[in-house]
Amino acid sequence: MPRVITAFSNPLIKQVRELRDKRHRRASGQFLAEGLRILTEAREAGRLPVLLFFAGPSAGHDLVRELIIAVETAGGEAIETDPDILSKLSGKDNPQAVVGVFEAWDTSLEVLDRNASGIWLVAERLRDPGNLGTILRTGDAVAAGGLILIGECVDPFSVEAVRASMGALFTVPVARAEWAEFLPWLRGGPGQLVGLSLDTNSDYRGAHYEAPTFLLTGNEAQGMPAEYAAACDLLVKIPMLGKADSLNAAVATAVMAYEVLARQRG
Amino acid sequence: MPRVITAFSNPLIKQVRELRDKRHRRASGQFLAEGLRILTEAREAGRLPVLLFFAGPSAGHDLVRELIIAVETAGGEAIETDPDILSKLSGKDNPQAVVGVFEAWDTSLEVLDRNASGIWLVAERLRDPGNLGTILRTGDAVAAGGLILIGECVDPFSVEAVRASMGALFTVPVARAEWAEFLPWLRGGPGQLVGLSLDTNSDYRGAHYEAPTFLLTGNEAQGMPAEYAAACDLLVKIPMLGKADSLNAAVATAVMAYEVLARQRG
Repeated sequence: MPRVITAFSNPLIKQVRELRDKRHRRASGQFLAEGLRILTEAREAGRLPVLLFFAGPSAGHDLVRELIIAVETAGGEAIETDPDILSKLSGKDNPQAVVGVFEAWDTSLEVLDRNASGIWLVAERLRDPGNLGTILRTGDAVAAGGLILIGECVDPFSVEAVRASMGALFTVPVARAEWAEFLPWLRGGPGQLVGLSLDTNSDYRGAHYEAPTFLLTGNEAQGMPAEYAAACDLLVKIPMLGKADSLNAAVATAVMAYEVLARQRG
Repeated sequence: MPRVITAFSNPLIKQVRELRDKRHRRASGQFLAEGLRILTEAREAGRLPVLLFFAGPSAGHDLVRELIIAVETAGGEAIETDPDILSKLSGKDNPQAVVGVFEAWDTSLEVLDRNASGIWLVAERLRDPGNLGTILRTGDAVAAGGLILIGECVDPFSVEAVRASMGALFTVPVARAEWAEFLPWLRGGPGQLVGLSLDTNSDYRGAHYEAPTFLLTGNEAQGMPAEYAAACDLLVKIPMLGKADSLNAAVATAVMAYEVLARQRG
């Protein structure tokens, strides 16, 4: 029988809520994911929460029941609570049916297999968790090998990033590295580094891509440092016909990724 | 000399802050935009705030000074205040240098000139202000004729939408209409209605587009109603190779819009 917690003052509730904070995620090695859709996606990808909170009334839902059984079978704990506490855990007014606490996983470059895909997404100093999640979602859609985060990026395990990924955090490999580690890793095998830039005349549609293609997107506000651009095998630009000089970072990444995908599929 | 307000209790501050709320925007016909970049974009597009708040120290900045002069010349008022009050107005911890109160404008279909562009963006029941702003930004980049919002969409004049648009709200025409108004308007002239759908075998890369192309994106969670899909001249899909069955709405719109742009440019 699942344990029942209905008191806001319960120390476990406080502890789980603190996972919304980066410092606590780092200290505990755990993170939060919310919602039946995302947790079901996680389960299908073989990732189960160590703690699963569900609101009493939702326990009648087939997918919630399956999740509870899967979590308990895997040695995790399912905890019954109420919608108010779920709201408190998720920080949203409309609470999700379920909130899960997951163990974070290894995000070093070593986890990546560069032969897994012809498309890789690379973002440097990505600051917006919504952008990060959206890029992961695009990564899933184009069957990218993974997302490589360079330098001081927002935490892929943040609640907002997980939410925006719609579960793709669980299906798309993520690695984090400094530029100084990434470049030797990249050059240790086949791979074309393609940078999105304004300072080039090469239109992204006419360019020659070679698999595996590593698509590098720069910081939302500043673009990428000159040093990174210089290290690229190819710089391409996306036409900007209006008043502004940049696209949203997740949009630019997706437009590029779909172009490369179309070329690779012939 | 600009008026100076440094008291949180000033009724004008309260009134301006209330523009973060949809109800107050509707009642007053005004909205908020923040940040020097966005307000400069607005000025270049010929839109000046009726009220401009700036923090004393930022008044030395050239662009701020130019804004103040432009606002006062146009009969608006520039008001000096402090960073704490700017934070309160914008609801952000890092206050922007400037916050402007703008008069909203006509967003009926009548403001649109369908001959203005070969690409139009249409979104129905768009719920996320970040997506709306991002779509406007893409609209600027592809030189779309405008964004047409169908049904119950998030308010394009919301602070979050304006922010995500990075100023494109001021450069890309926006119209709001019910489906029952939109369809006769569309059919009253040339225009191909292209719907993004999962229920088709037509890949977006192989499809035949005719200018002006109206790209219809459905609601983030549910896609578009069957009735809307049936009214489209063409349904196309973007390949989804991963576990998930959908892209972020702003990403899907951008991938489509850039495909149509590339075709139209030959």
